Amino acid sequence: MNVVLDAVRAAISSPVGYIDQPNDMSPYLNDWRGMFSGDALCVARPGSTEEVARLVRIASEYNVALVPQGGNTGLAGGATPTGTRPQILLSLNRMSQIRKIDRAGLTITAEAGCILHAVKQAAKEVGRQVPISFASEGSASIGGMISTNAGGVNALRYGTARHLVLGLEVVLSDGTVLNGLRNLRKDVAGYDLKQLFIGSEGTLGIVTAAVLRMAPLSHQRCAGFVSINSAGDALRLLEHLHGTLGDCIGAFELMSDASIQRVIRLIGGRLPTSSAPWYVLVEAADCAPELETRLQEALIAPLEAGYIEDAAVSMSLNELQEFWTLRENMGEAEKHAGRSVKHDVAVGVCDVPRFLEEAATAIGNLRMDLDVNAFGHVGDGNIHFNVLGSRSKADDVVVNRAVHDVVARFDGSIAAEHGIGQYRVEELLLSKSRVENELMATLKRALDPALTLNPGKVVGIV
Amino acid sequence: MNVVLDAVRAAISSPVGYIDQPNDMSPYLNDWRGMFSGDALCVARPGSTEEVARLVRIASEYNVALVPQGGNTGLAGGATPTGTRPQILLSLNRMSQIRKIDRAGLTITAEAGCILHAVKQAAKEVGRQVPISFASEGSASIGGMISTNAGGVNALRYGTARHLVLGLEVVLSDGTVLNGLRNLRKDVAGYDLKQLFIGSEGTLGIVTAAVLRMAPLSHQRCAGFVSINSAGDALRLLEHLHGTLGDCIGAFELMSDASIQRVIRLIGGRLPTSSAPWYVLVEAADCAPELETRLQEALIAPLEAGYIEDAAVSMSLNELQEFWTLRENMGEAEKHAGRSVKHDVAVGVCDVPRFLEEAATAIGNLRMDLDVNAFGHVGDGNIHFNVLGSRSKADDVVVNRAVHDVVARFDGSIAAEHGIGQYRVEELLLSKSRVENELMATLKRALDPALTLNPGKVVGIV
Repeated sequence: MNVVLDAVRAAISSPVGYIDQPNDMSPYLNDWRGMFSGDALCVARPGSTEEVARLVRIASEYNVALVPQGGNTGLAGGATPTGTRPQILLSLNRMSQIRKIDRAGLTITAEAGCILHAVKQAAKEVGRQVPISFASEGSASIGGMISTNAGGVNALRYGTARHLVLGLEVVLSDGTVLNGLRNLRKDVAGYDLKQLFIGSEGTLGIVTAAVLRMAPLSHQRCAGFVSINSAGDALRLLEHLHGTLGDCIGAFELMSDASIQRVIRLIGGRLPTSSAPWYVLVEAADCAPELETRLQEALIAPLEAGYIEDAAVSMSLNELQEFWTLRENMGEAEKHAGRSVKHDVAVGVCDVPRFLEEAATAIGNLRMDLDVNAFGHVGDGNIHFNVLGSRSKADDVVVNRAVHDVVARFDGSIAAEHGIGQYRVEELLLSKSRVENELMATLKRALDPALTLNPGKVVGIV
Repeated sequence: MNVVLDAVRAAISSPVGYIDQPNDMSPYLNDWRGMFSGDALCVARPGSTEEVARLVRIASEYNVALVPQGGNTGLAGGATPTGTRPQILLSLNRMSQIRKIDRAGLTITAEAGCILHAVKQAAKEVGRQVPISFASEGSASIGGMISTNAGGVNALRYGTARHLVLGLEVVLSDGTVLNGLRNLRKDVAGYDLKQLFIGSEGTLGIVTAAVLRMAPLSHQRCAGFVSINSAGDALRLLEHLHGTLGDCIGAFELMSDASIQRVIRLIGGRLPTSSAPWYVLVEAADCAPELETRLQEALIAPLEAGYIEDAAVSMSLNELQEFWTLRENMGEAEKHAGRSVKHDVAVGVCDVPRFLEEAATAIGNLRMDLDVNAFGHVGDGNIHFNVLGSRSKADDVVVNRAVHDVVARFDGSIAAEHGIGQYRVEELLLSKSRVENELMATLKRALDPALTLNPGKVVGIV
């Protein structure tokens, strides 16, 4: 393999672009949660698209596989090597230039290694926003965000990462560069090739740069915290708010009382409203004045009709942040509650109440003394239906099966926003139809016939 | 071929599902503008997805091609047979059921043959909207809208048809049904297969039904008509309005003085503002009160700074409609002005002013006594750069070449929203890179190896 390593070293102009010492490689070969760990011949950190292309040609020539990696913040092991083929970890983290901003056209062009937070900051500096928000945005990269079609709390209003991508530069499996870095908001000239690479987790091509859509910045921001009796009432509230306030509703999060109590035990603070089985955190944002008043007024009818129990509206950015702190610490509080089996599922929004009931029943029926920790982006049907109390990996599998069987009954998704990676490859095969699995395999074989790109991820072909 | 016709007739349960008399076939075999005309063995009008699947299997078995057609409102001959292979015209117009509406989840499920206007009405009846608008929406079908990734005047705010599609049911080239009719707003479980069929004009599969995203309805609507000196000033205005009013800016259209004068000569009416080289029609819509006042106030600074000359704000729906009538009659007025060579191009929004200048210069340099009729969705970079005065098809080719050469300099699109169809197949090959053309051909061969679906369209493979 020395000949491969020599070629890789020669392909990258900077000495910081090549790592082969185990200690230095370690941060790239383990995921941040310590769930996945892999092996690689070396870590290559190209500094340009041309260097990425060279590396792909080398990998292709020597029949070595490549594992692309951005900020290494994934939750499904998509950026950690797996399997027995010799692999090179290809980190894009040196490609971190913001290439261009078009304020009138609302576009920003960034390289794959740019950290999302930095790109959002650059947009903010010109009075615009990149409208996507998720927990790891301080270290997640643009390339990873696109490759996993990341979701987050604002998908309800702005869609997922896919909806932000106007153009892509991609290195294909044979080392040719697909230059689709166009900044066009309308383009139906032929097949929309970039769509292939969004959400395919680096298995069909390596994203090196992107043109992203920006959105105007909302001058007003305001949150409501609402006590409710059931998930069904939450949907009724969502319908009402869409009817009165329109699409300024940017986030609509559901949390169970047990989840909130765990957070309060961990970080202190207090419940903004009277206690109830469930809570909704709703955020509204727009440019028109008196948003607080409009949100308050919109909550009167639901209070009077009795399908919400209590409500508080943030009167300052501080208060808004206090509400969000309760939501944002759900994951941390769960971690302190011990071992958890996580499910990142989605069902149709109208099916959320029945899904929550049936999934809780399914967990109860296991008689394994488990606790459900359910919370999430109910406005877009994405529930983190996590289960506490499993004692072993064997138990995890049973729990997983039980939840995913309920998801299947609703024709839902077993991966709403965290991707398949290496973690859910088997589950994906089970959850999709034969037609879908075959079409995915057809695409993989058509675009990466030598199976050079991210083997063992997403599709079950290695 | 009688055996094929017998099989087709037997595949469709209703007698109205089969047409083979020339007079009855004629409306299906000619496009509405009279530009394209083709031949077919018969017209098949299946009543269900299963019947579509049967027809595809028959076509595949007998080596006959299929040309899918929706409302037959296309502008590029995508739904008209071409070439010499025996073909069956497959009209989806009998599949016109709206299957489901989820008001809380903002989704609507409709069959391919549904007319867009009917789907928009159904959404409106539950207080929501399907946020896409274009001239032919009274006869265009959902299937056609998706297959061409239609754009229109609201893409600035809501994106194109692609951004509305959450799930698709598709019949593949071998007659298997890809059931991806999921109503999920977040789903990263494997490759997003539906993206392949959006915008590929029926060449990779036949869309039979879709789940579309709805949006909240805006209670307030208001338009501004603005006189300006240059396209650059229009962009400055767009930036300013995005900065002050946010994303309630739903449409931002640019029209030249010559174009407007042609409309006024045709339909009467008057200019709402003082005359100037260019005009902008901007529409804002949201749920907050006093939108007229907010739009008026937002226009004060540009007037004072001198980069807009004059402005009028609609104070009623009637007045709003009067503004739009000027814009909506651009096409009709152009028709009355004689032969025109149409270009449906897009460039980056920031490049629009330079594009307009350079394209006008290129047309002037031809010394063919031509007039430019430029108007369009400048907010999303999509200009209908039409040229009047060409005297022959040979002249058309020269004009086309001149405009598309300028588009190429800006790395723009030769088909922003009207598609490739049969009209621009050669142009597409010329305008895309070798890598892009090869990847498109790879996809076509992978998904439709027998070339059964819509031969001679989009990709240059027949």
